[in-house]
Amino acid sequence: MEVAEGVSAATPTEEMNGAGNLMDFLDEPFPDVSTYEDFHTIDWLREKSRDTDRHRKITSKSKESLWELIKSLLDAWSGWVVMLLIGLLSGTLAGVIDLAVDWMTDLKEGVCLSAFWYSHEQCCWTSNETTFDDRDKCPQWQKWAELMTGHAEGAGAYVLNYFLYILWALLFSFLAVSLVRVFAPYACGSGIPEIKTILSGFIIRGYLGKWTLLIKTVTLVLAVSSGLSLGKEGPLVHVACCCGNLFCSLFSKYSKNEGKRREVLSAAAAAGVSVAFGAPIGGVLFSLEEVSYYFPLKTLWRSFFAALVAAFTLRSINPFGNSRLVLFYVEYHTPWYMAELVPFILLGVFGGLWGTLFIRANIAWCRRRKTTQLGKYPVLEVIAVTGITALLAYPNPYTRRSTSELISELFNDCGALESSQLCDYVNNPNMSRPVDDIPDRPAGPGVYNALWQLTLALIFKIVITIFTFGMKIPSGLFIPSMAVGAIAGRIVGIAVEQMAYHHHDWIIFKNWCRPGADCVTPGLYAMVGAAACLGGVTRMTVSLVVIMFELTGGLEYIVPLMAAAVTSKWVADAFGKEGIYESHILLNGYPYLDVRDEFTHRTLATDVMRPRRNDPPLAVLTQDSTTVEDVETLIKDTDYNGFPVVVSRESERLIGFVQRRDLTLAIKNARQKQDGVVSSSVVYFTEDAPQLPASNPQPLKLRRILNLSPFTVTDHTPMETVVDIFRKLGLRQCLVTRSGRLLGIITKKDVLRHMAQMMNQDPESIMFN
Amino acid sequence: MEVAEGVSAATPTEEMNGAGNLMDFLDEPFPDVSTYEDFHTIDWLREKSRDTDRHRKITSKSKESLWELIKSLLDAWSGWVVMLLIGLLSGTLAGVIDLAVDWMTDLKEGVCLSAFWYSHEQCCWTSNETTFDDRDKCPQWQKWAELMTGHAEGAGAYVLNYFLYILWALLFSFLAVSLVRVFAPYACGSGIPEIKTILSGFIIRGYLGKWTLLIKTVTLVLAVSSGLSLGKEGPLVHVACCCGNLFCSLFSKYSKNEGKRREVLSAAAAAGVSVAFGAPIGGVLFSLEEVSYYFPLKTLWRSFFAALVAAFTLRSINPFGNSRLVLFYVEYHTPWYMAELVPFILLGVFGGLWGTLFIRANIAWCRRRKTTQLGKYPVLEVIAVTGITALLAYPNPYTRRSTSELISELFNDCGALESSQLCDYVNNPNMSRPVDDIPDRPAGPGVYNALWQLTLALIFKIVITIFTFGMKIPSGLFIPSMAVGAIAGRIVGIAVEQMAYHHHDWIIFKNWCRPGADCVTPGLYAMVGAAACLGGVTRMTVSLVVIMFELTGGLEYIVPLMAAAVTSKWVADAFGKEGIYESHILLNGYPYLDVRDEFTHRTLATDVMRPRRNDPPLAVLTQDSTTVEDVETLIKDTDYNGFPVVVSRESERLIGFVQRRDLTLAIKNARQKQDGVVSSSVVYFTEDAPQLPASNPQPLKLRRILNLSPFTVTDHTPMETVVDIFRKLGLRQCLVTRSGRLLGIITKKDVLRHMAQMMNQDPESIMFN
Repeated sequence: MEVAEGVSAATPTEEMNGAGNLMDFLDEPFPDVSTYEDFHTIDWLREKSRDTDRHRKITSKSKESLWELIKSLLDAWSGWVVMLLIGLLSGTLAGVIDLAVDWMTDLKEGVCLSAFWYSHEQCCWTSNETTFDDRDKCPQWQKWAELMTGHAEGAGAYVLNYFLYILWALLFSFLAVSLVRVFAPYACGSGIPEIKTILSGFIIRGYLGKWTLLIKTVTLVLAVSSGLSLGKEGPLVHVACCCGNLFCSLFSKYSKNEGKRREVLSAAAAAGVSVAFGAPIGGVLFSLEEVSYYFPLKTLWRSFFAALVAAFTLRSINPFGNSRLVLFYVEYHTPWYMAELVPFILLGVFGGLWGTLFIRANIAWCRRRKTTQLGKYPVLEVIAVTGITALLAYPNPYTRRSTSELISELFNDCGALESSQLCDYVNNPNMSRPVDDIPDRPAGPGVYNALWQLTLALIFKIVITIFTFGMKIPSGLFIPSMAVGAIAGRIVGIAVEQMAYHHHDWIIFKNWCRPGADCVTPGLYAMVGAAACLGGVTRMTVSLVVIMFELTGGLEYIVPLMAAAVTSKWVADAFGKEGIYESHILLNGYPYLDVRDEFTHRTLATDVMRPRRNDPPLAVLTQDSTTVEDVETLIKDTDYNGFPVVVSRESERLIGFVQRRDLTLAIKNARQKQDGVVSSSVVYFTEDAPQLPASNPQPLKLRRILNLSPFTVTDHTPMETVVDIFRKLGLRQCLVTRSGRLLGIITKKDVLRHMAQMMNQDPESIMFN
Repeated sequence: MEVAEGVSAATPTEEMNGAGNLMDFLDEPFPDVSTYEDFHTIDWLREKSRDTDRHRKITSKSKESLWELIKSLLDAWSGWVVMLLIGLLSGTLAGVIDLAVDWMTDLKEGVCLSAFWYSHEQCCWTSNETTFDDRDKCPQWQKWAELMTGHAEGAGAYVLNYFLYILWALLFSFLAVSLVRVFAPYACGSGIPEIKTILSGFIIRGYLGKWTLLIKTVTLVLAVSSGLSLGKEGPLVHVACCCGNLFCSLFSKYSKNEGKRREVLSAAAAAGVSVAFGAPIGGVLFSLEEVSYYFPLKTLWRSFFAALVAAFTLRSINPFGNSRLVLFYVEYHTPWYMAELVPFILLGVFGGLWGTLFIRANIAWCRRRKTTQLGKYPVLEVIAVTGITALLAYPNPYTRRSTSELISELFNDCGALESSQLCDYVNNPNMSRPVDDIPDRPAGPGVYNALWQLTLALIFKIVITIFTFGMKIPSGLFIPSMAVGAIAGRIVGIAVEQMAYHHHDWIIFKNWCRPGADCVTPGLYAMVGAAACLGGVTRMTVSLVVIMFELTGGLEYIVPLMAAAVTSKWVADAFGKEGIYESHILLNGYPYLDVRDEFTHRTLATDVMRPRRNDPPLAVLTQDSTTVEDVETLIKDTDYNGFPVVVSRESERLIGFVQRRDLTLAIKNARQKQDGVVSSSVVYFTEDAPQLPASNPQPLKLRRILNLSPFTVTDHTPMETVVDIFRKLGLRQCLVTRSGRLLGIITKKDVLRHMAQMMNQDPESIMFN
């Protein structure tokens, strides 16, 4: 039998363990009796009752004096203060990251002579010599070749620019991976799988620490600027959660209670998405749907507040100079038609297939990285991938620029003033150029050229993203997924548009597309494709649609978006239930009890509990016949987190549960401070120790550390109910009884192992507890 | 001691009981062994495990044949089909209600000669003789006086119109209250308190039946058209839930499982709000925040689907002819300024005070109605209130029209083309009239006139709404609350605007309001005021802001709305925690365990469990020594819902729990069908009945009806944890043990009584169980 938590079970993987140089480990105080050890699960019920105790104390004290009353009011308001601070800091950080990424991405191509800290766009804004037709050309902005050789054109300049582009990319990514390696190993990846695990009640010390915050912010800028196929959205959620954790430490209410802390972190995740997409409502729903585990209504309201503050902070920084929160905000003017649902659903199928392909390939590659030599050279890996990315990306204008700019261009409808290659349509010479509502036109050579380049970009993005996500640098996959979908969507959109133009007498077009009308918006297809691909990878549904709704700002396009998102989720679910985050949680073996997994097997508690049939009997204490020495031996010989206490070994009637650490500490204390407690002293868990003859050693009374209300189920309880109880009440362990007799114990780890077994997964992959 | 559920406990109030003429009672089948009795609570865990069993059966069968596979696929899709049907029907009903209300409201004033079924607006649309300046005057539309006497103007015509207005109002409301009385008593009120209670796991048979649906839809139209101070929003939620219940009966998956049925009802509530406000996301959040009890992620996604389908169905009906879903959709063009937060917060304070006043006064009045003679004459009451309302409403143009038109006018910004009295500003003669962005102007006489009338309307609405809500007709309070807030807000808005115009050199205006600029939007103040008042009454927060956000369609105004909503909630909460719905739940004594109430007292399970100190011992069965006669006596003498089964009376070790109805049925069956079972037969709950001598009567084996996994807690468990367990797991009862011995039982009713006691409320007010 096992109360299987603790040292022997916790064999953290290399990446978790090789953290001797983690500064954050020093940040946190030595765990005292009330906190949890690293890589252990928390007991939600216990945290909640501790908070109620604290609250009760403050309320009763507040009647004593004015000062205590003020203190109790401050305590009641501290939640809102934390939310305000999280919103302000995460909004500011998002703004700074946006500005820095903008500048450094342009730095790869050239520099602003009038002020080197200006990005290309800012440089030409401030210039008076910019003409409208060539908005992005101005004498102040010089490409590297022009600056160094004086020649802006020609093969030599191209090669020099190409070379410098790669060089800068390598420099940025090298800096990023080195900083991560040296200062904060936890800063790598998107962070969302780990945050999900932490929110479900797992302790990963330092994962949300100050150093992780600082290093992740800096390296995120470097990683995105290096041009790798990754986004800043996922890591921004991690950054916001780090902010949340930081501000928790200001108030003992949050810093000393792991349950309350997780409420703050849920809200911080909402703030993170809010600034990543400029979608406060979407952020709250993302936190609710995707990330959070325990989400009471109070947290809903606070998340919303934090998300709004963050969005408004970002807006007042105004990083894109257009009073929008994201680069790819769009407004469409034309409606969509029922017949268009067919291509939208096809895009949904594409998104689902892409999601499946990406998850399978990426997980296979990450497993290879974990198990082979490859994992030992993370810096080399990053350098190699950056080199390849830069080498292949530069020649294609759609991959050379930053991915969010690409998405922005693909989402946009072609207005009359658009100068992009994608908008190179053949205009009717008789037609005046209105600003809005341009009718469908035949595609010009630019569009055909763009189609080719987009197809190449699509293949490139699909392949390179699989290898990029999971490297030892901050990397989100929202943006690459959306880019894949947007490219595919735009291609489909142009195809439908041209079909509708050239064949407007076909029966499917006849009803809604008269010649000279503006019936197809290729930009909308790009957006639908992006939603489909993002949905296929992450399996988000409501929050995805709401985020997209906030990006377009109209109810009008919810149906196409939803059709694509639902199709994509169904197609992807048909090939495997887990989204990318769940897959990475499984890969890393985190003890995550997914609220969405339905457990439908007929097993009973008795099938899962320890001890099993041939195991040694359960390690229990008796209420009045165990000696101090017995207890010490038990503690030494086992590594269980706690021990049930029974009336006697014969009757085996359960009276309570005692935590290992409480027991260790209590005995240590008693030995030091209490006279007469020796190895042969009897430990009493009863209310009154009996009067003993003076010759017997002094007894040790330990009732105060005994939990008198341990959670029990009977051996006949279906596992389905047990799983439900573990999930909803957030238990660590549960005792199994039959007509009052203690039979065994079920821990969260046992539940997870059993679920994995039932789903034919490798149960040994669950490593922590 | 009591397993206190059932007949004796259920003394339904008069309004529930006087339902002998309820047609819906006939609709539902006679409850069989697996269903619950009326006015009882359901056992969520049991419902869930029954659904899993069903699912398991279908899954295993689906491998047998193609037909079974198709059936299992249909079963999996039935949830979506139900959602689609709910969306279609509730969208259609909302559209029909909107059209009918529009027509009947106008019918009070006059009739369309060209087609009597046209409303005023439709009548003049179709007319060619309408001029732009007098959009609402056309020869086809005639007031009653004009039609009857030929004179449109003059005192005589006014009096005749006045008289007919009152007559129509009385007719409509008399019809409404009579229909409710005769056919469906449950159709009265807003329905939201009852739906909250039903969703929390309570059975009120017929509350969501076909007759309620039909009668509520018809009487809602009548009630709103009668000009009473009530809205259609709350009742629309009830109507949508009736649709949900209706479609549940198509699939045994939902009709036979009270847990699954409630998932559908949660989604239906979302669809109801979606069509009431044209806000699908707000509807989902409303269902999540305000109405639902158990809201898994699957329900979130389905609710969203139902809400979207409903919104699109309504949009395709297009009841207002402007492709908007609600009458009061607005778009503002000017930004707001930081200094304006002060009046916004003042509006929040007003909203909070209004909420408190309304709830207290309305509850006091409703209590008086319940306890005095007043409650015996519901028809007279409705007639009287309608008469007074119509008498006072007609002279004031702001109360004469329908409340949603009033709100629409108050929300709207004054454009250059506005002909309303509220927009009678003094124009600068030198200024050309631009369409948008009109600078602030001094108020003209019309505005001052409007201010007076609005003040009178405000007082009238405040007083009359208190007496209207709770009468025996369908009545929502969203619209009246919003009207109160919108009037107050508009008055404040005009005041601030005029101050800013006349004193633009004051320090507070100097920074943002240059002369000739458009700085203050009085319509925005109206909207903020509406949000504040609605928030004060219902204590909605996130969903309120999101609904308002969907009405304005811009992130821009979220901060003012949120500032007002939060202030209003805080102010109102300071005077009492309960919103109007919770207050009505308390008033009616429904057994509702609010997820938001924090239980912070230090009591233990032992303080709450039955039997109390001086009670007779717990009524238990033993596993192998009770005779059939003993059991029958126990069933006859008690009215408990179930009985614990113990090993023996001496050891009192718990082995299971048996339901009263299962026991009754099993014994009845055995007596009829099983030979040798007589009164002296011993009932065995053990696995094997012992071999008895032939002289003994045949034993009765009942293990199959024994629940072997009853929920237990120890007597030392804090009540805080017990409350949490009841809430999260949705229990009906829980057994209390100490070291394996059964001590007592805690039912949901005991928990509610104890909570009420601890909060100094009258514990006897909880009437049902």
